[in-house]
Amino acid sequence: MLEALKEQVLKANLDLPKHGLVTFTWGNVSGYDKDSGLVVIKPSGVPYSEMTVDDLVVVDLDGNVVEGDKKPSSDTPTHLVLYKNFEGIGGVVHTHSPWATSWAQAGCAVPALGTTHGDYFYGEIPCTRRMTEEEIKGEYEKETGHVIVETFKYCDPLMVPSVLVHSHAPFNWGKDPEEAVHNAVVLEEVAKMALRTYQINPDTKDMQQTLLDKHYLRKHGKNAYYGQN
Amino acid sequence: MLEALKEQVLKANLDLPKHGLVTFTWGNVSGYDKDSGLVVIKPSGVPYSEMTVDDLVVVDLDGNVVEGDKKPSSDTPTHLVLYKNFEGIGGVVHTHSPWATSWAQAGCAVPALGTTHGDYFYGEIPCTRRMTEEEIKGEYEKETGHVIVETFKYCDPLMVPSVLVHSHAPFNWGKDPEEAVHNAVVLEEVAKMALRTYQINPDTKDMQQTLLDKHYLRKHGKNAYYGQN
Amino acid sequence: MLEALKEQVLKANLDLPKHGLVTFTWGNVSGYDKDSGLVVIKPSGVPYSEMTVDDLVVVDLDGNVVEGDKKPSSDTPTHLVLYKNFEGIGGVVHTHSPWATSWAQAGCAVPALGTTHGDYFYGEIPCTRRMTEEEIKGEYEKETGHVIVETFKYCDPLMVPSVLVHSHAPFNWGKDPEEAVHNAVVLEEVAKMALRTYQINPDTKDMQQTLLDKHYLRKHGKNAYYGQN
Amino acid sequence: MLEALKEQVLKANLDLPKHGLVTFTWGNVSGYDKDSGLVVIKPSGVPYSEMTVDDLVVVDLDGNVVEGDKKPSSDTPTHLVLYKNFEGIGGVVHTHSPWATSWAQAGCAVPALGTTHGDYFYGEIPCTRRMTEEEIKGEYEKETGHVIVETFKYCDPLMVPSVLVHSHAPFNWGKDPEEAVHNAVVLEEVAKMALRTYQINPDTKDMQQTLLDKHYLRKHGKNAYYGQN
Repeated sequence: MLEALKEQVLKANLDLPKHGLVTFTWGNVSGYDKDSGLVVIKPSGVPYSEMTVDDLVVVDLDGNVVEGDKKPSSDTPTHLVLYKNFEGIGGVVHTHSPWATSWAQAGCAVPALGTTHGDYFYGEIPCTRRMTEEEIKGEYEKETGHVIVETFKYCDPLMVPSVLVHSHAPFNWGKDPEEAVHNAVVLEEVAKMALRTYQINPDTKDMQQTLLDKHYLRKHGKNAYYGQN
Repeated sequence: MLEALKEQVLKANLDLPKHGLVTFTWGNVSGYDKDSGLVVIKPSGVPYSEMTVDDLVVVDLDGNVVEGDKKPSSDTPTHLVLYKNFEGIGGVVHTHSPWATSWAQAGCAVPALGTTHGDYFYGEIPCTRRMTEEEIKGEYEKETGHVIVETFKYCDPLMVPSVLVHSHAPFNWGKDPEEAVHNAVVLEEVAKMALRTYQINPDTKDMQQTLLDKHYLRKHGKNAYYGQN
Repeated sequence: MLEALKEQVLKANLDLPKHGLVTFTWGNVSGYDKDSGLVVIKPSGVPYSEMTVDDLVVVDLDGNVVEGDKKPSSDTPTHLVLYKNFEGIGGVVHTHSPWATSWAQAGCAVPALGTTHGDYFYGEIPCTRRMTEEEIKGEYEKETGHVIVETFKYCDPLMVPSVLVHSHAPFNWGKDPEEAVHNAVVLEEVAKMALRTYQINPDTKDMQQTLLDKHYLRKHGKNAYYGQN
Repeated sequence: MLEALKEQVLKANLDLPKHGLVTFTWGNVSGYDKDSGLVVIKPSGVPYSEMTVDDLVVVDLDGNVVEGDKKPSSDTPTHLVLYKNFEGIGGVVHTHSPWATSWAQAGCAVPALGTTHGDYFYGEIPCTRRMTEEEIKGEYEKETGHVIVETFKYCDPLMVPSVLVHSHAPFNWGKDPEEAVHNAVVLEEVAKMALRTYQINPDTKDMQQTLLDKHYLRKHGKNAYYGQN
């Protein structure tokens, strides 16, 4: 079942080490099939070098395993909360990519400092609040999803498709697994450049709103004119 | 038409990922044929791994497509302004290479701190002013070219063949596409070393003018004695 | 003798350059066989590219060579002190990996700032005190082991399987050579991210104890639920 | 003539890009044959990927070309001054390796902060004074050699086999070309770690003299006990 989506999810998982986003097994990608309401996700703790389509696990939105012999990623409940709450997304990626993770550990949003950022993210990439004792001791992975959703209360997740979980690491999403990985790569790049920018000039201001509008909207929405479409 | 130039432009584009200057499709190279007044440029949003000579687009200096099925790079109008205004250049390169882009985001010129810089750039590599609301909302890519030209009002673009566009990223040029890519590599290297130099010693002064003269002029102009010529 | 352990030790040594942890011959891995009380260790100063199983040296816990034509690593006495004092470890790794070594040179423990750290280390990774004149001039490599053991007087070496030796570099251990190398890779990653975290936000606080408990204990101990076991 | 030395010099030059020490043609290695008093050196501006033994140039200590069709490296006069003044060296390497060059641009010596440094350099790696107008306008490359020699007036060049030339880049040497390249790699590594060490702890003190003695002398001199000899 869901063979095409499985191929996409496998490829997206294998792309994580190719892009230098993961060490060992520290990352996972899932894909969502809207018609069936099912999610294909990476198994827990399996090395990328050995992973095949048959290792992938199919779960429903309540986390019940529908197909697969392996345990799904321990972060599965976080993915499911995102699919339930962020209308229109079809892929979720979690990594501990080092630059974005450093911002998460610092508890700081990645500010919009230039057009590289503005081409993909319509404003700063937020960092969640610290989770409470209750949330951590309770259904931790599900609560991680809830604190992400809370962070996007006044922000459109389709226009800012990444988040930093405080003291933890980033989650990214997109219309499909490939786009979610693409956004994870861009997050890492802008996180790296943002720190260096402040090191060059600690008084750097955010980019002008007009410039952010220009770059985001020339690549997204009905008036986009970038690419061959 | 322009087969030799197309091969140069293709090779120069493919050299960008080899030198680690681009992520995904974030960069473009063009070449200018003085005799015909035509420019060969990368298509918009095509992955480097799939690009062939047939994807390249030929445009005239007013931006009319003369040959090619694809849309030219969205940055084409910027390239054209540079060819029209900077007498003697034959190649233009735009990247979001991370060190140079960090300086652009910081709004700071890369200072001449050592002989690596002086071997290629006869003085600091300037950063443009921020663009105005009107420029951004108007013919944005063309205005990007104009603000670059304005930045070189009192500076010879042949002696300082790179610029940082404020809150954006670098543009580089040269006598042909290969030299323009070469300069883009050097810019990235000196941008990286300049930040680290200040981190080691925040009171670092610019290199002596005599030393800059010596290094620039031993590689450029009629008294050059570097290399086999 | 100890052929299986030798294969493990050889592979673990060769994994050091693969993970970017060593320059030239700056690193060594050993493995301990509890039943025989013998240690298999890398020879001194042999390039990784030429190393074979036959180059490995077998020593007893007093440092007597039991098998092998080569001199064992000059750091052998340090390894032996760790095997004698840290009950349950089966592999030791020493490297000069650059991020961890920078923390060792700075004389600072690597703080627990996020879940990447907490997944492997149950608290900060300590730095030893400076060694005394007597220790340095005496049996230096053995004393290096003693100062490490002293550092773990109030800390369980199985729960924090790495240490920074002041003005020197890290030592890491684990239940076998492979796990020790794994921990060396994680140490390098968290050492890198810890510095960047402070550069982003100098006021960053350690992660919450509850979050550290959660992450460490979901991967270790009887209630672990990460991976396929 | 000098076929064995030529092979060593070629290999040492080709090792520079392998170790990530050079961009384009920014570096050169020479070797000295004491018996004949002749030096084999890299040609000026030839790409490493195309270089063969036949491109190498043989010069005498006064800089006269004895064999070879190409122009020798423009830095040849600097190499010759070092061979004339530093008794016992058989190889010289010049690079613009980025970490060491950043220290040179900052005008700061690389301090001895840990045992990685102490294993190769018996004290800080000095930076020359700025060169004078006269020196730069005169026989510049030869004067570069003189200012290096002046820097080692009270320091043994065999015990500290590298130097930073102010506002320029490092020169390294050794008993043969291979050892000189080895030292260039170590310099880059310790230069990188020294900056990071200060970023972690700006109050870091130099390593203890006793520890420096211990590490330097366990690898050098008659009481050395590192390696298989």
